[in-house]
Amino acid sequence: MIEFDLKPMFSPQSIAIIGASSDESKIGGRPLYMLKQIGFKGEIFPVNPKYLEIAGYRCLPDIQSLPKHVDLAIIAVKSNAVLSSLELLATRSIKSAVIFSSGFAEVGAEGIEMQNKLTGFIKKSGIPVAGPNCNGFTNLKENVIASFSPVNLDQVDPIAFISQSGAVATVTTKLIRDIGCGYQYLVGTGNEAGVDFFDYVNYFAQQQEVKVIGGYLEGARNKESMDRALASCLENEKPLVLLKVGNSEKGADAATSHTGSLAGNSAIYRSYLNKKNVIQVNSEEELVDTLALFNNAKLPSSLGDVALVTGSGGAGIIMADKCEEYGVPLAKLHPETTAKLKDLLPSFAALGNPIDVTAQVLQTLDNLFESIEVILNDANVGTVVYYMQLWDHLAPTFIPRLEQIASNTDKTFIVCWSGVADETKQKFRESDFCWMPTPSRTIRALKNMNEYNRNRLTGSYKKFSSEERMTVPQALEAVFGNANEHTGKTYLAKYGISVPTGKVVTSIQDAVNAAEEIGYPVVMKIASEQIAHKSDAGGVKINVKSDLEVKAAYDEIWTNAKNYNPNAQLEGILVEKMIEDGIEVIIGSVQDPLFGPCILFGIGGIFVEVFNDVVLRPAPLTREDAYEMVQSIKGYTILKGARGKGPYDIGTLVETLVRISEFSFDQSEWLKELDINPVIVHEKGKGVTAVDALIVGNEKKVSHTNSAIEAVR
Amino acid sequence: MIEFDLKPMFSPQSIAIIGASSDESKIGGRPLYMLKQIGFKGEIFPVNPKYLEIAGYRCLPDIQSLPKHVDLAIIAVKSNAVLSSLELLATRSIKSAVIFSSGFAEVGAEGIEMQNKLTGFIKKSGIPVAGPNCNGFTNLKENVIASFSPVNLDQVDPIAFISQSGAVATVTTKLIRDIGCGYQYLVGTGNEAGVDFFDYVNYFAQQQEVKVIGGYLEGARNKESMDRALASCLENEKPLVLLKVGNSEKGADAATSHTGSLAGNSAIYRSYLNKKNVIQVNSEEELVDTLALFNNAKLPSSLGDVALVTGSGGAGIIMADKCEEYGVPLAKLHPETTAKLKDLLPSFAALGNPIDVTAQVLQTLDNLFESIEVILNDANVGTVVYYMQLWDHLAPTFIPRLEQIASNTDKTFIVCWSGVADETKQKFRESDFCWMPTPSRTIRALKNMNEYNRNRLTGSYKKFSSEERMTVPQALEAVFGNANEHTGKTYLAKYGISVPTGKVVTSIQDAVNAAEEIGYPVVMKIASEQIAHKSDAGGVKINVKSDLEVKAAYDEIWTNAKNYNPNAQLEGILVEKMIEDGIEVIIGSVQDPLFGPCILFGIGGIFVEVFNDVVLRPAPLTREDAYEMVQSIKGYTILKGARGKGPYDIGTLVETLVRISEFSFDQSEWLKELDINPVIVHEKGKGVTAVDALIVGNEKKVSHTNSAIEAVR
Repeated sequence: MIEFDLKPMFSPQSIAIIGASSDESKIGGRPLYMLKQIGFKGEIFPVNPKYLEIAGYRCLPDIQSLPKHVDLAIIAVKSNAVLSSLELLATRSIKSAVIFSSGFAEVGAEGIEMQNKLTGFIKKSGIPVAGPNCNGFTNLKENVIASFSPVNLDQVDPIAFISQSGAVATVTTKLIRDIGCGYQYLVGTGNEAGVDFFDYVNYFAQQQEVKVIGGYLEGARNKESMDRALASCLENEKPLVLLKVGNSEKGADAATSHTGSLAGNSAIYRSYLNKKNVIQVNSEEELVDTLALFNNAKLPSSLGDVALVTGSGGAGIIMADKCEEYGVPLAKLHPETTAKLKDLLPSFAALGNPIDVTAQVLQTLDNLFESIEVILNDANVGTVVYYMQLWDHLAPTFIPRLEQIASNTDKTFIVCWSGVADETKQKFRESDFCWMPTPSRTIRALKNMNEYNRNRLTGSYKKFSSEERMTVPQALEAVFGNANEHTGKTYLAKYGISVPTGKVVTSIQDAVNAAEEIGYPVVMKIASEQIAHKSDAGGVKINVKSDLEVKAAYDEIWTNAKNYNPNAQLEGILVEKMIEDGIEVIIGSVQDPLFGPCILFGIGGIFVEVFNDVVLRPAPLTREDAYEMVQSIKGYTILKGARGKGPYDIGTLVETLVRISEFSFDQSEWLKELDINPVIVHEKGKGVTAVDALIVGNEKKVSHTNSAIEAVR
Repeated sequence: MIEFDLKPMFSPQSIAIIGASSDESKIGGRPLYMLKQIGFKGEIFPVNPKYLEIAGYRCLPDIQSLPKHVDLAIIAVKSNAVLSSLELLATRSIKSAVIFSSGFAEVGAEGIEMQNKLTGFIKKSGIPVAGPNCNGFTNLKENVIASFSPVNLDQVDPIAFISQSGAVATVTTKLIRDIGCGYQYLVGTGNEAGVDFFDYVNYFAQQQEVKVIGGYLEGARNKESMDRALASCLENEKPLVLLKVGNSEKGADAATSHTGSLAGNSAIYRSYLNKKNVIQVNSEEELVDTLALFNNAKLPSSLGDVALVTGSGGAGIIMADKCEEYGVPLAKLHPETTAKLKDLLPSFAALGNPIDVTAQVLQTLDNLFESIEVILNDANVGTVVYYMQLWDHLAPTFIPRLEQIASNTDKTFIVCWSGVADETKQKFRESDFCWMPTPSRTIRALKNMNEYNRNRLTGSYKKFSSEERMTVPQALEAVFGNANEHTGKTYLAKYGISVPTGKVVTSIQDAVNAAEEIGYPVVMKIASEQIAHKSDAGGVKINVKSDLEVKAAYDEIWTNAKNYNPNAQLEGILVEKMIEDGIEVIIGSVQDPLFGPCILFGIGGIFVEVFNDVVLRPAPLTREDAYEMVQSIKGYTILKGARGKGPYDIGTLVETLVRISEFSFDQSEWLKELDINPVIVHEKGKGVTAVDALIVGNEKKVSHTNSAIEAVR
């Protein structure tokens, strides 16, 4: 995949508009007038044979008349003229282009064909082309508007926002303006025939002035481009905040697809993005709030807990609740801090955390501001959130003082001011100060910044969210247990995965031989289709430990079975390695169209669908990956040992995960799905046994190792 | 608890202001000027010896000069003069009062004493008194402002909002105004020395004009008043939307309290409120959005699924994701509907659900509106959400058409219009039309309305949320397993709860006698402090079925034990009823200060802390309650039977829950805590066994039935 140079696109010295119009409401007219209005400094070349001049710019009759140094072409012609325009532009050495025109992949077969040709041309020529079917982009710091959508000109912050929906792009522009911010870069990616979502991310990650990148993502087109962009974000320490949507298609597509790849997608995305320290948000508001916070607040260079300073008891309780809900740690104030606050605040102020400074303190503002500084200076505190509401008349006094406090500290200082009037909003917009609208929204955004910063500083990954513990793909469930017993064990055994061994015998001597071959202790069970409840029939002996015991057990089982059901056809007695008790886990593998084979791990057995305590990650896994997966499920507590049971053999479990991931990766050409449930994790030192496995090939089920071997548990 | 008559408070014909001030910024001045400004129709009597007249009203020198028919007194005097004022007001037959004055329970010991006296007087006199330390209330439809807080006069909807925080009250007033609504009734409850939060709820539930009641609740003061109010909401079909906060105190209080009552509180509240069909929200935005939706949208008289109609693909995906996340069912359109839409919409419109009508349809508006009507007429559809964005210039055309569509249907029709300008907001405010701000917020509010309506229509209760499956109180955990074996089993057995029976014997004949007494099959285990791992020592025999087998087992165990550790002191052999395999659950009881004894039930054993699949409900339980509890945990899937195991004995489990709840209720004078974990639920027909129980009395631990009896599982 080409790494496009997007500099000429976002910082053009000259712009041509192919299909320029004098009508300001047309997509060929809007950018021209907006460029003029905003005062774009470079050259502008409208191209349209119908005009000699538009908006004061000389209009060229055709693309051939363009000079050979144009950085960016905006293409606003009919869809069937797009490719030929682009070909002509290439002859004029155009350095980049954006196609507004629609009528491509989004309208069906004919459009898809046109778009494929476009993609072919882009690949061949190497010209970075945005769109088609997009509303373009802006770089407001350099007065570049290559877009026909409304633009927020009254606030420009070093935020880049990339959207796979034009509508979401413009709507979030409005939403973020409401909390005092504006995008410098805004991109609607359209159909992404050339430059894709993550190419933009990659470019912005490398722009020094950009503080934070946001995005609305339906799906990545190319893993290589995504890998490159996210590596770049990590390297340049650019926070990336994504609203990844399209997670509900699994339901709609369940009928047509048994691969689980779509259902898997959203969980795999989550896991993959977590690993890259991408901040994943869950709504439009959370998106803009988090971007605004990153833009406005300082990212501290060391970790510290949060102090909540509030004039309203209610707001303090809401924030404290949210801190607990989101796992944001509240600071324990140093006794010295508390002592100082006692002197500064009214006697009935609450000096815990939240610190309720009371409304009365508004009558002694110096004490309030000094209190905030005292709290900021507490070594236990990394972030102070100050909550205030209404009282717009105090804004002119407050905002400069708050700004001053913020500039005097290296810590994070956030102000949540609820219910403010438009004038106060405007005052905040003019300051460089961080302003958040409500207690709940403040703490939600803070959680995102906190997690990002913790991961950045400690290199540890995000805790897996509850969504990540996704539903086990319906597909796995649908085929589970339906296939015949076969040679699956052989596949697994080749990768060193432990499976129970067993043999059906029909004589005492064969039983003794089998037991010696398998190794003591063994389990013995009657094998008869007519005896379903083997234990009830006295047909099971566990923990058989010697030749003598085998002989006795053989006779006893046979007699019991005969007595239990004289008409039963006895096929023999199954002698099998005794499987130690343990915790049941599930290990599986699914093929994802974007990520390839992905490994699923979680608490298994009968608990698998109920608790969905499952995590997914692309194969192959390193030992570190596998260990992280094991640690990330809730059931890790059980594996470590709980209530007097365990610890269990986590070392072998990690090894087994790695081997299964290698198996899935090696065999991915034919392997569609692997589902081993349960895998029994025995006590520490006693290993792991894959008891029941289902293997599905690309075309048909290949193998199912049945638990002929069912432990008496 | 008195049921106050709040009519004179909220619909007064005459208002006295004790401590009236001519200073508009003072709490004794603000209501006077605001009443004048809004045009209160009744009489106003300022009382203050300092003035002859304020704002054109004749000012009385003292309370004694008041006429005897005054409905409401606003008290704005110093805290130490409040009680005497109230006593004087009583002599003037005052019908209700609100105390603005602070300086009571919120400032410590002295204030608490004053407040207790106040409460005593209120109880004795029966006069409904609001506050103290409150910012009052409004009834804007009748021009009543008994408040000193800012009031939103430009929008009055039949919404009542009650807040235990004055700040939250005023802030949500602003937030709801942003989405086009305003409260008719707004109450800041203050310290609730007299009238409490739920007294207000009870009153508003009985007011015919009120469409929806909202509240910010930190905690109920009195269960009787809460019961009464919620019964009234159910009876009058008034939706009650609560932001219940203070759920994080459990962390802070964990050190001082081992009762778990605070931690339990929030889970018990949730469970209790769910049962009363109270809508519980999780943030300030969700609160106002839900209130606005109930105010504006029609509550359909039958259930139906949701159709999402959108001009933006992105918004459609977000809404579909949210529908799945929140369990809001999407409608499957009738083929006839789809056929009609094909004629009305552009060829590349997506006719699934979401229905993407495309931006192009804005050029043929009649087709758009007709499409919406076609979808509303689909029998599978109960609710249509129409998403639109920006394009404010279309608002004058759109809003009347949308209003018309809404008035022509009995179904729920909701418009989400994102990123609108202030003028459009104002147009929506002027219409009676339902307007929501973003896709995520729309579906979140819709979920709340949907759930409420489903419960209303079907009588079924809300599904238990993930929060409700709360962490098992730390307290239970802290004491678990530390007490001595004792007589707990006796307590439980008296209530018919099955516990395993067993006996330690020291001779073969005693073993046989014990086994016969207990009933076969039995388990036999060596009893020796020196032999911890009984199985390793060959010291365990399960499924022993006859006298003969007992004798053989006795010898074998004794010999094995002697061989295993010749120095071990053998106390004897434990003969015990063999416990069938099954699912481990936990049943417990905690004392809650408000709700009394509450029963905890969930998946137990080693899974208990990990999955927190637990539900709580006040005792005593009816069989129906117990059955609902069993059905409400995630693990119900397992109990019903999953992956070839089960079904388990749910009938006996329900019975056991009822009996344990009766035990807890009967014994609540001395019983502080009961923790039975695990309770084994056997297969259907085979009952339930309480294997290990911890009972804690009010002062000390009373009993712990240890699992001397540990099943070999």
